[in-house]
Amino acid sequence: MRECDVVVVGAGVLGLSTAYHIKRRHPELRVLVVDKFSAAGQGSTAKSMSAFRCLFSSRVNYLLSDSSVDFYAYVQNQLGVDLKLAFVGYLWLLSEREYGELHPVLDGLAASNLKYEEFEAEELAGRLHLNVCLAGDEEAEVLGLNDVYKGVLIPKAGIVDADCIVKFYEEEFLKLSGEIHYGVRVESLIVEPCKPLGIPGEPFFWQESRVSGVKTDAGVIKAKKTVLAAGAWIPQFLDAVGVECFIKPKKRQVFAIEAKKPELKQLLYTGGFNPVGCMPFTILPKPRVLIRPFPTEGVFWLSYADDFPRAFKLEEDPQPEKSFYEYGIYQVLVKYFPQFRDCHPYSAFAGLYEINTLDGHPVIFEENDLMVVGGASGSGIMKADAIGRVAAALYDGEEYADLYGGRRFKVSDLGIKERRVEREKLQI
Amino acid sequence: MRECDVVVVGAGVLGLSTAYHIKRRHPELRVLVVDKFSAAGQGSTAKSMSAFRCLFSSRVNYLLSDSSVDFYAYVQNQLGVDLKLAFVGYLWLLSEREYGELHPVLDGLAASNLKYEEFEAEELAGRLHLNVCLAGDEEAEVLGLNDVYKGVLIPKAGIVDADCIVKFYEEEFLKLSGEIHYGVRVESLIVEPCKPLGIPGEPFFWQESRVSGVKTDAGVIKAKKTVLAAGAWIPQFLDAVGVECFIKPKKRQVFAIEAKKPELKQLLYTGGFNPVGCMPFTILPKPRVLIRPFPTEGVFWLSYADDFPRAFKLEEDPQPEKSFYEYGIYQVLVKYFPQFRDCHPYSAFAGLYEINTLDGHPVIFEENDLMVVGGASGSGIMKADAIGRVAAALYDGEEYADLYGGRRFKVSDLGIKERRVEREKLQI
Repeated sequence: MRECDVVVVGAGVLGLSTAYHIKRRHPELRVLVVDKFSAAGQGSTAKSMSAFRCLFSSRVNYLLSDSSVDFYAYVQNQLGVDLKLAFVGYLWLLSEREYGELHPVLDGLAASNLKYEEFEAEELAGRLHLNVCLAGDEEAEVLGLNDVYKGVLIPKAGIVDADCIVKFYEEEFLKLSGEIHYGVRVESLIVEPCKPLGIPGEPFFWQESRVSGVKTDAGVIKAKKTVLAAGAWIPQFLDAVGVECFIKPKKRQVFAIEAKKPELKQLLYTGGFNPVGCMPFTILPKPRVLIRPFPTEGVFWLSYADDFPRAFKLEEDPQPEKSFYEYGIYQVLVKYFPQFRDCHPYSAFAGLYEINTLDGHPVIFEENDLMVVGGASGSGIMKADAIGRVAAALYDGEEYADLYGGRRFKVSDLGIKERRVEREKLQI
Repeated sequence: MRECDVVVVGAGVLGLSTAYHIKRRHPELRVLVVDKFSAAGQGSTAKSMSAFRCLFSSRVNYLLSDSSVDFYAYVQNQLGVDLKLAFVGYLWLLSEREYGELHPVLDGLAASNLKYEEFEAEELAGRLHLNVCLAGDEEAEVLGLNDVYKGVLIPKAGIVDADCIVKFYEEEFLKLSGEIHYGVRVESLIVEPCKPLGIPGEPFFWQESRVSGVKTDAGVIKAKKTVLAAGAWIPQFLDAVGVECFIKPKKRQVFAIEAKKPELKQLLYTGGFNPVGCMPFTILPKPRVLIRPFPTEGVFWLSYADDFPRAFKLEEDPQPEKSFYEYGIYQVLVKYFPQFRDCHPYSAFAGLYEINTLDGHPVIFEENDLMVVGGASGSGIMKADAIGRVAAALYDGEEYADLYGGRRFKVSDLGIKERRVEREKLQI
């Protein structure tokens, strides 16, 4: 049996950011991170699209991502740690209807220093060799696709390397003599009475009880505070002790296409949108197929976040589905970008989103000495630094967290009991 | 393969009430109820404590139960169907602190015609042979028990027979030539494209799709509308198609004690609280052990709704735990009611609550031709009539439902998207 002050379950980006920020505030505490994988960020973090945007309609989403991205830029530019962060921008291709919905949101955000640029469909057609007009295309009609009416480019958005972020937090945490045990699988949370009586069968319902650590396949770890940052696995642990977190697991798939053909190469390295000289992260009109450029590798990553009837399902090793690309993504993609005709993925991977089904925002709360940090719903990478800071403030019982750059954030806004978040209007 | 207009999954009290109210509005429709059991109400309905109260702090809870109880009283008194409904009342035994919390709520409710009666601890001590003062009792201190400070009796509350209610709805539904297939286990919901193309692998994500019926162990049932009223089993079906309902299953146990000893007989048939001449349904101070009188059988039912760390867990055949009575309920009970000393249950049963973890209120919504009716969180019997009426109004796309007695209820208040319910302050 081991004992420590804080045990963090999960060495993904949220677990390590949280462990680092707690340890940074309390170098004297014994903070232990455990993970079933043999290295950091090997779960859903490794399956992320590793892109970020600071454009969100919800104030909470905006603060979390904007301050985290500022921190990552600081790490890369001031501390000299290469996170492969590049501001390639996000380009939203919008149907007339979508533009009508987005525009008031952009107007509202313009007041808060948001910069964006609008493009006419014709200009985008010329620069990206994009089909903006699908009228008369019977297949496009069956697919339910709409013409591109406008494009909106958000410059403060782009790509990053999730693994580099994870390694950064891991290294900083270890430098502070934090401990990490890899290859240790947590089997369950341990619940004990606050005042044990030594009677078999405790805790009884008339006793106050608390989470006092975790049972692992390498023995018991007792802790004053247990932090559950196990992503899509969180609800499984919490269901066993009857705690609700509003998180559900859902498979997400990414397909990689090499920019081999000259026309694809040309598309990938389209200039004029950003200093990198590559295509921005691009969002097609509904259904919103996503194209993430990977300029250093000469590759595109393609994805789509499907809703009904995709199951909420916990899988140890989720697999990408060939048909999801062939009959889904590909069909939509080639209508707008004919450059992809006959292109097949040379590789693909799938991970689990930890979706917060309440409102799509992260969940950070404490109950009975158990802290839950998760539910980032697919935007954990771009919010990880702020989430770690909010979690560390919660650990210290503080009302407000100071995010990077000095912005304050009310900790209870991401809790369960006094949760206060707006509906996000810009989901992709 | 069978086809129908409406298939209702679950012949519990909510499924049958819903089926009846839909069929009543549309006698011409083919409405089919399926259930895995061989008769009506054999799931969690049969494991209910079968008690009701019209005292709730939330307007929604109050309307649902008050109008349902009025309907049951009408069925029993005007239609002459014996539901074994008896207004024995609810007696809340309150510590000083609990009284302080409850009193403003009662004051607030008094405006809405709520009748209640307050009792001094001493008077209750005399009438019920109740220990109201536990000071100096070391065991009581370890148990964390408080003195009884006051009692509050709610006359519009009592006991009923869940099975009689279920049978009433079943009979009325069959009279209207509704169909019920017992012994049919639903395995999954069927999802199909709204406009099928005949391509293998449909629906693809770019297609609109809908729930078109259910797959059962006796074949496929296609329906224009599928109504999921499967209680604690609802989330299992919905997870498979990625729909969130905020319902979690949780075991609840009931222990039956015979009133054999003279002092227990005397307690059970305590006069003066109600026209029945029995003890009211009694709620002990926290931890709120519940005592339901069963005067016609000479029996008490005892229960406790435990929270953390009781698991959210779906079990086909949940079992009562001897230790839950011996080390839990019994220990608390005998401190207040010494009459129960050395009493052991002659029988016990366990069922599954379908807890709505959002706010404890029912959930009634429709998505993609699938209606969900559930989440009654342990008060399904006492709200079943109103829930069926709201569900039938939702089926018809109406904004308001007319509850029994003419009170109107906004259907979307119990939905997911525009949900509007207050936090219930009087949970037991």
